[in-house]
Amino acid sequence: MADTLASLRSFMASHSPPLDALVVPSEDYHQSEYVSARDKRREFVSGFTGSAGLALITMNEARLWTDGRYFLQATQQLSDQWTLMRIGEDPAVDTWMADNLPAYAAVGIDPWCISVDTAQKWECAFAEKQQKLIQTTTNLVDEVWKSRPPVETNPVIVHPLEYTGRTVADKLKDLREKLKNEKAYGIIITTLDEVAWLCNIRGNDVSYCPVVHAFAIVTSNSAFLYVDKRKVSSEVNSYIKENGIELREYTAVSSDVLLLASNQLDSTSAVEGNHAEVTNGININSSEIDIVGNGIAESKSNKADLIWVDPGSCCYALYSKLNSEKVLLKQSPLALAKALKNPVELDGLKKAHIRDGAAVVQYLFWLDKQMQEIYGASGYFLELESANKKKDSETRKLTEVTVSDKLEGFRASKEFFRGLSFPTISSVGPNAAIIHYSPKAETCAELDPNSIYLFDSGAQYLDGTTDITRTVHFGKPSAHEKACYTAVLKGHIALGNARFPNGTNGHALDILARIPLWKDGLDYRHGTGHGIGSYLNVHEGPHLISFRPQARNVPLQASMTVTDEPGYYEDGNFGIRLENVLIVKEGNTKFNFGDKGYLSFEHITWAPYQRKLIDVSLLIPDEIDWLNNYHSKCRDILAPYLDDSEKAWLKEATELIGA
Amino acid sequence: MADTLASLRSFMASHSPPLDALVVPSEDYHQSEYVSARDKRREFVSGFTGSAGLALITMNEARLWTDGRYFLQATQQLSDQWTLMRIGEDPAVDTWMADNLPAYAAVGIDPWCISVDTAQKWECAFAEKQQKLIQTTTNLVDEVWKSRPPVETNPVIVHPLEYTGRTVADKLKDLREKLKNEKAYGIIITTLDEVAWLCNIRGNDVSYCPVVHAFAIVTSNSAFLYVDKRKVSSEVNSYIKENGIELREYTAVSSDVLLLASNQLDSTSAVEGNHAEVTNGININSSEIDIVGNGIAESKSNKADLIWVDPGSCCYALYSKLNSEKVLLKQSPLALAKALKNPVELDGLKKAHIRDGAAVVQYLFWLDKQMQEIYGASGYFLELESANKKKDSETRKLTEVTVSDKLEGFRASKEFFRGLSFPTISSVGPNAAIIHYSPKAETCAELDPNSIYLFDSGAQYLDGTTDITRTVHFGKPSAHEKACYTAVLKGHIALGNARFPNGTNGHALDILARIPLWKDGLDYRHGTGHGIGSYLNVHEGPHLISFRPQARNVPLQASMTVTDEPGYYEDGNFGIRLENVLIVKEGNTKFNFGDKGYLSFEHITWAPYQRKLIDVSLLIPDEIDWLNNYHSKCRDILAPYLDDSEKAWLKEATELIGA
Repeated sequence: MADTLASLRSFMASHSPPLDALVVPSEDYHQSEYVSARDKRREFVSGFTGSAGLALITMNEARLWTDGRYFLQATQQLSDQWTLMRIGEDPAVDTWMADNLPAYAAVGIDPWCISVDTAQKWECAFAEKQQKLIQTTTNLVDEVWKSRPPVETNPVIVHPLEYTGRTVADKLKDLREKLKNEKAYGIIITTLDEVAWLCNIRGNDVSYCPVVHAFAIVTSNSAFLYVDKRKVSSEVNSYIKENGIELREYTAVSSDVLLLASNQLDSTSAVEGNHAEVTNGININSSEIDIVGNGIAESKSNKADLIWVDPGSCCYALYSKLNSEKVLLKQSPLALAKALKNPVELDGLKKAHIRDGAAVVQYLFWLDKQMQEIYGASGYFLELESANKKKDSETRKLTEVTVSDKLEGFRASKEFFRGLSFPTISSVGPNAAIIHYSPKAETCAELDPNSIYLFDSGAQYLDGTTDITRTVHFGKPSAHEKACYTAVLKGHIALGNARFPNGTNGHALDILARIPLWKDGLDYRHGTGHGIGSYLNVHEGPHLISFRPQARNVPLQASMTVTDEPGYYEDGNFGIRLENVLIVKEGNTKFNFGDKGYLSFEHITWAPYQRKLIDVSLLIPDEIDWLNNYHSKCRDILAPYLDDSEKAWLKEATELIGA
Repeated sequence: MADTLASLRSFMASHSPPLDALVVPSEDYHQSEYVSARDKRREFVSGFTGSAGLALITMNEARLWTDGRYFLQATQQLSDQWTLMRIGEDPAVDTWMADNLPAYAAVGIDPWCISVDTAQKWECAFAEKQQKLIQTTTNLVDEVWKSRPPVETNPVIVHPLEYTGRTVADKLKDLREKLKNEKAYGIIITTLDEVAWLCNIRGNDVSYCPVVHAFAIVTSNSAFLYVDKRKVSSEVNSYIKENGIELREYTAVSSDVLLLASNQLDSTSAVEGNHAEVTNGININSSEIDIVGNGIAESKSNKADLIWVDPGSCCYALYSKLNSEKVLLKQSPLALAKALKNPVELDGLKKAHIRDGAAVVQYLFWLDKQMQEIYGASGYFLELESANKKKDSETRKLTEVTVSDKLEGFRASKEFFRGLSFPTISSVGPNAAIIHYSPKAETCAELDPNSIYLFDSGAQYLDGTTDITRTVHFGKPSAHEKACYTAVLKGHIALGNARFPNGTNGHALDILARIPLWKDGLDYRHGTGHGIGSYLNVHEGPHLISFRPQARNVPLQASMTVTDEPGYYEDGNFGIRLENVLIVKEGNTKFNFGDKGYLSFEHITWAPYQRKLIDVSLLIPDEIDWLNNYHSKCRDILAPYLDDSEKAWLKEATELIGA
């Protein structure tokens, strides 16, 4: 790493102009949260493996910004060449640069790896001291990264209508309607899951996310998909073409954006059905469209002359090719369209979560037996100190990684399984306090009958993506651990049981999950919920349940998915988190004040909460009723997927509470 | 009113340039919520008497924007020349003007009656169609308002240290420290309560608010108070001078802001102790101050060359006199300083609320007896249909106004009483659904033993300002009324019992008061809490408990005051609101996660909730405990102010619930 920084600094010095600082963000060209191995530049540079973070290298310093989920992990992974900057506690990166870099400083960035929003915000912060954001023409990290993994060439797969529920034609039609409403004649789509969703394709370019490295451009008349053509079979190419989309090379997006800017892109389209034919159905009056230099008179009213760019996800490199006066900077309409699941997607998600819940119950049953046999634990149900039985043998040792592999095995045995949806968090005792802990086989901890065990995991199934967290103890939990578990559970229930009027966003609801913790002066340093994809990314927006107000946070709406995952983490001791996936649905309230319509949540995750970790004296009757009702549904819903001994175990795990 | 609009339109037409629209806001030159009689221009023009609203007059339309508290009232008061625009439902005024006024339209406004923020926001909205905001040189409403009340000449009063708790010198010292931190050499203070708070003066220029029409300018060396000199006795003038403040004519603020802009104001100061002497104590190094044209060299680093202006409250007229590049647009530092009550103020507020609570209990006791005697009501305690006893006599008829006069009488008998803090809301049945209902003697309703009665009222005492709402029924409330009352009460308790980390603002907490209502699809169209002054305005910021996120909303901090007042309103039927004043204090939580420090609330309002309106089956044990504990404190705390029969009544009113 020392060599890496030295090499980078020498590239920074020889850059024209010389760079006073270089920013290395986590994101790839598509502003992805999870990136492919060859795009893990920030990890390569800093050694920090968390999913979120930003590295800043100056001539004599190296700093890494990350959020509360990763403070502990970053402390452990960063060498002493690095200074950890805690988001929310330390100055933000732009403020820090503006304050600490000299006047006229040149700050280098690969413009493909930074969003329009971020670049503009930084340029604003830089103005006072006339510092400059320099777009490097190559990525300097790639220059020094000798062992950088090669480009992926995984095949693009068509995701069929039985899972997507909507045709590409319908999605394009809706999109063009939205373009028209905003007076835009084209949109540049850069987010991988938006491209996959729009084109009903999936891929394998990024671990855990079934997406393809691709861009798309849609105009009122044409549609283009930019992807490495080696990934596209002739069948898939035909499918794409039939849907009115022209396949082009991934790298062609750069020059095509220039053509789009001068309104010449449509005329290059070779796909049949493109141009006016495709748009007949949506009633675009060509006289309303401003086709400069094409012989068609400009219509004064209602001319669609803008190019829609999502400033939160479009890279600065592509945006810089446009005339900024003709750009509509607004959240992509696909973000919300993708978040509002259609009935086929909702049905698939529910089914996927049932199979996934069965895998979790099978895992808990298996783990319970192992913990008793190998470690003499009193087990999932009894609350006794471990008998300290000698380990069966070293070969039967359970580690965070071996048990999480077993969990993956239970999932892999289920129909439609296509892999995990994120790296499983399987964490014992103090490791559970590392919010996004990711165990490594060589270094991970052994299971411990006297410690809390937290697992946060999920899978990709053809019909839906899952994400669930449970926290368990196989020995005798302390009163403090129980009180904390119960506070987390109360928050989890309070949020899940909320009813709220249309127009309410997740920021407003977030506090419901924290109030029971705050009562004791406890809290957690992460958001409370995120949307989840339909065989797509495990984290998706545009909504969010978070304590931070977000300018882009949109209200919760019926048929969205969202997780409910409060927690509590005690550094060096233990961590607790409980997570279910919810679907937003009509609230069926007795009244409808203000005619707004009221919403509520439906849990679609099925796995028991551990009764012995619950201090029932802290629950109110409504909470007890909810738990018993949820547990009884778990039993019924999961039964078809369990054998008799698993069913018997689940029956005991879901016995009435507080009876 | 028809004549008024016609006259206004003729002034608009003859204005240079001719105005396509004229905006008449509710606010005076100080952006006050409550304004003096001669400043009620919007009321004069529109006939709508609510405290918040904005009138827009075009050549053929008149529209009035107001918020949810006033929808019903505005509907009743506006003539058919007017269109009601519902804030939150209809387009905002700037959007409406931008969309509906023609291109190049001239929109007139008295620049003294609009804040910098609002003016800049409108100009932004106007840019697309090149509409223009025209600053009129006179107020056109004043031109047509023949019977406009004369200027007030009420005396300025010194508010002594035993109530303010801090000297003017200390307040000026703190203020200058803040100026220095922001590199500002002066601040223009335009908000009436900020001027009164800073100078420890009170007045009588605006009904309900003990403020003086005044501006202040404070620089690092000088301080000026602009007030009609007829209001200032020589004793008060001496007091002001002794505190290092120079008294100047109210109208001189205009020319003095120009002097301030060119840094010549200080040199005109005639008050001894001004200039460097006053600032000795705060360690201002004169070499750091940029005194242009005064022979002192400009220091490159850290030069204080800005003028601080609060864009939310400073009028556009004064701001327009400044060089915008040398203006610091930021919330006034006095807003927070005033909100953080010192121990003397907290003590005064608590005492004032005890006397005020006693007045409320005396009122309820009196009203209970009257309702039984005159209307044959079963009364405050029993839950029976009214016996329909014939009215005692017309002379003993109880109306919303006569009973509220009686309530004022109970308050007036208390020590330090100086008047009401806002127009008493005394409302029977459907009138209670008008959130800010203000009964008029000629038209108000009679008390009704079969209807809910809501009163929201408060007073100014020398040691504090009060604000309380209770909702009662003297007959047999319906199950629905009880369910609604209980839901409001649950929200009121949930908010009041919250603990939360430092950094939490009122927007985040607001939902706690709504969740019990939302459960049934109920809600209310107003915020949940506002700060309250120390013998100052009943509504003060900078914090707020509101469902709307506010850019300027600051986190709740220990020693702030805030109300807790959820409600529910059923148009045409009834209204419910419960309101206590709370003090923010240390939370004394068991743990202190993140070392943030946790906060909680202390109720300082004392008056019983009506037990018979509570459906105890809907309460959880914690809520019942809280109520019984609060009631028991009411009894003890108010006892010294009540006679034996009142004490006996209060004892019954506070009997154990759910025992």
